[in-house]
Amino acid sequence: MSAATPVLQNDLLLRALAREPVPRTPVWMMRQAGRYLPEYRATRERAGSFMDLCRSSELACEVTMQPLARYPLDAAILFSDILTIPDAMGLGLHFVEGEGPKFERPVRDSSAIRALRPPDIARDLGYVTDAVRVIRRELQGRVPLIGFTGSPWTLATYMIEGGSSRDFARAKALVYDDPAAAHHLLDMVATAVTQYLNAQIEAGAQAVQIFDTWGGALSTPAYQAFSLHYMTRVIEGLIREHDQRRVPVTVFTKGGGQWLELMADSGCDALGLDWTTELGDARARVGHRVALQGNLDPAVLNAGPAAIRSEVERVLASFGSGAGHIFNLGHGITPGVPPEHAGAMIEAVHELSPQWHESS
Amino acid sequence: MSAATPVLQNDLLLRALAREPVPRTPVWMMRQAGRYLPEYRATRERAGSFMDLCRSSELACEVTMQPLARYPLDAAILFSDILTIPDAMGLGLHFVEGEGPKFERPVRDSSAIRALRPPDIARDLGYVTDAVRVIRRELQGRVPLIGFTGSPWTLATYMIEGGSSRDFARAKALVYDDPAAAHHLLDMVATAVTQYLNAQIEAGAQAVQIFDTWGGALSTPAYQAFSLHYMTRVIEGLIREHDQRRVPVTVFTKGGGQWLELMADSGCDALGLDWTTELGDARARVGHRVALQGNLDPAVLNAGPAAIRSEVERVLASFGSGAGHIFNLGHGITPGVPPEHAGAMIEAVHELSPQWHESS
Repeated sequence: MSAATPVLQNDLLLRALAREPVPRTPVWMMRQAGRYLPEYRATRERAGSFMDLCRSSELACEVTMQPLARYPLDAAILFSDILTIPDAMGLGLHFVEGEGPKFERPVRDSSAIRALRPPDIARDLGYVTDAVRVIRRELQGRVPLIGFTGSPWTLATYMIEGGSSRDFARAKALVYDDPAAAHHLLDMVATAVTQYLNAQIEAGAQAVQIFDTWGGALSTPAYQAFSLHYMTRVIEGLIREHDQRRVPVTVFTKGGGQWLELMADSGCDALGLDWTTELGDARARVGHRVALQGNLDPAVLNAGPAAIRSEVERVLASFGSGAGHIFNLGHGITPGVPPEHAGAMIEAVHELSPQWHESS
Repeated sequence: MSAATPVLQNDLLLRALAREPVPRTPVWMMRQAGRYLPEYRATRERAGSFMDLCRSSELACEVTMQPLARYPLDAAILFSDILTIPDAMGLGLHFVEGEGPKFERPVRDSSAIRALRPPDIARDLGYVTDAVRVIRRELQGRVPLIGFTGSPWTLATYMIEGGSSRDFARAKALVYDDPAAAHHLLDMVATAVTQYLNAQIEAGAQAVQIFDTWGGALSTPAYQAFSLHYMTRVIEGLIREHDQRRVPVTVFTKGGGQWLELMADSGCDALGLDWTTELGDARARVGHRVALQGNLDPAVLNAGPAAIRSEVERVLASFGSGAGHIFNLGHGITPGVPPEHAGAMIEAVHELSPQWHESS
């Protein structure tokens, strides 16, 4: 797309990910295109099912753009679901109101795992790369577009459990009783994830993020063997430069605050942090190697604008002066947040962050 | 009770909590008297409601003793619920099948908090201290009895949310919007918790544990201000010697692995660790100050005996040689675990741990 590509007008995100000086801290929100926005709910209603919304590149583009119309955000993130890959592997994804994602055909044992076939990314997930292209066109270079995927471990837990889980009884029983079968599954999923992110990058994603939502449920050695190992393999297989620009990779393991040093060894450019880790501590530990993204507790957005502003101030101060910080929530924005509270957070980042960049 | 008190025959737990040499690692399980045991389910059925079971000192004693009849455990833990204090404050605790605890009258705002009255421990929670006395009599000095409480923050979240919560939207909105009201509530609850644990100690509890189930949902500064601060205050107010023996205090913040140094400053004798923290790392960080309890992933008990044994071996090796380790799960045992799997874990601790104590 290089010939027709419009110039990127706001490259704060990419510069911060590269730990280059910026005049203020860039900001975006995980799940920024989501249910807290009335305009999202209206599009969602029109679309039919949640997966119909994901599968329509026009509608996925529409909801991707909605938060950018409301707020001065520094990035767009592809609207999609983390479970598109297992869906493309024939597990039958659907959503049950109030219960989250479900698979009709979970893979419960070794023989179900061995019977799995990898997805054909171009054929089965073309709707995602189509959406990336449509969004890039619509963005006109205003801000960069972030592509994303679930981590191999996170996808595997849903594939084995058949949906969300509190204690991952089945997935962990497999890991401990039949590690070879677990590795076989993770290996196949990691290959698919790599191809999937590369397809997004080729279609125009200018940065990518790996969401490891459930890595934090593992013990340290199990995290290394069954989650981090496969994220590292994915990163090794990624296109790291496209359209004459580096494509930075962010790894976000929710609950992974104890493992930042290990995560920074994965080859990623940035770590996403949930709100339980102090940015200042994280910076002291790994800030010389990677950029840091986060980490306001999303629950703070249920409080009023004054409290939000004061917590934004605290998060900025915790990172301190200089480059390498991307402001974000510590997890996705929740459906009940009043949109003006999200606005108060973004405004506070715009107002309060320049002082931390004055020397740069 | 000193005159009639039988000699404690198995003091491995108390010695390990004092970081004194022991011939093998003591072991008990969080929620060891629980639904995974068919004999528990039978007593529970006879009792009527879950709170009827807690309120009958005879039945609470019966279920407390059940795991000791099955397994060579090194401690009994009082059978009760963490929410007895808010129940005694008039919030109306009940249990909804599959949904966990619910309060009929949650405290939703500042005025509801200001209207709260502290419980009268002797009058409203005498059934708990009665149970402690009955269990001590029944134990005949076989193993020590552990008393417990929920942490002030954990109790407050249930009181505000009215039950379990995924993101603590209401409790955190209170913390950020009206910290004075949150502190007022936590102050009252902390005083009640202190009196409650002291009543358990006077009735015969030989060690106590504070379960901070939801402290890990907070940011680091919020954890310090709204959870750890109040646990520290509770510990400062506790009877630390009774019947000529030190009464050790264990603090367990699930998801608190990043805060071990802060927790060790609370004045506690031991830290409970969930399975995401490596015991060896924790020992290097705080093992010169406190004993460590944990931390097998309870989900490992869904795997077979060979896998269980190998994970027990790994946990023991992670702590390494010497005193100060109490083997436990990293969280409560789950209802679906086959009882023989719990037995395999306990047997493995008995068989494999002596080698780590040979020099002592």
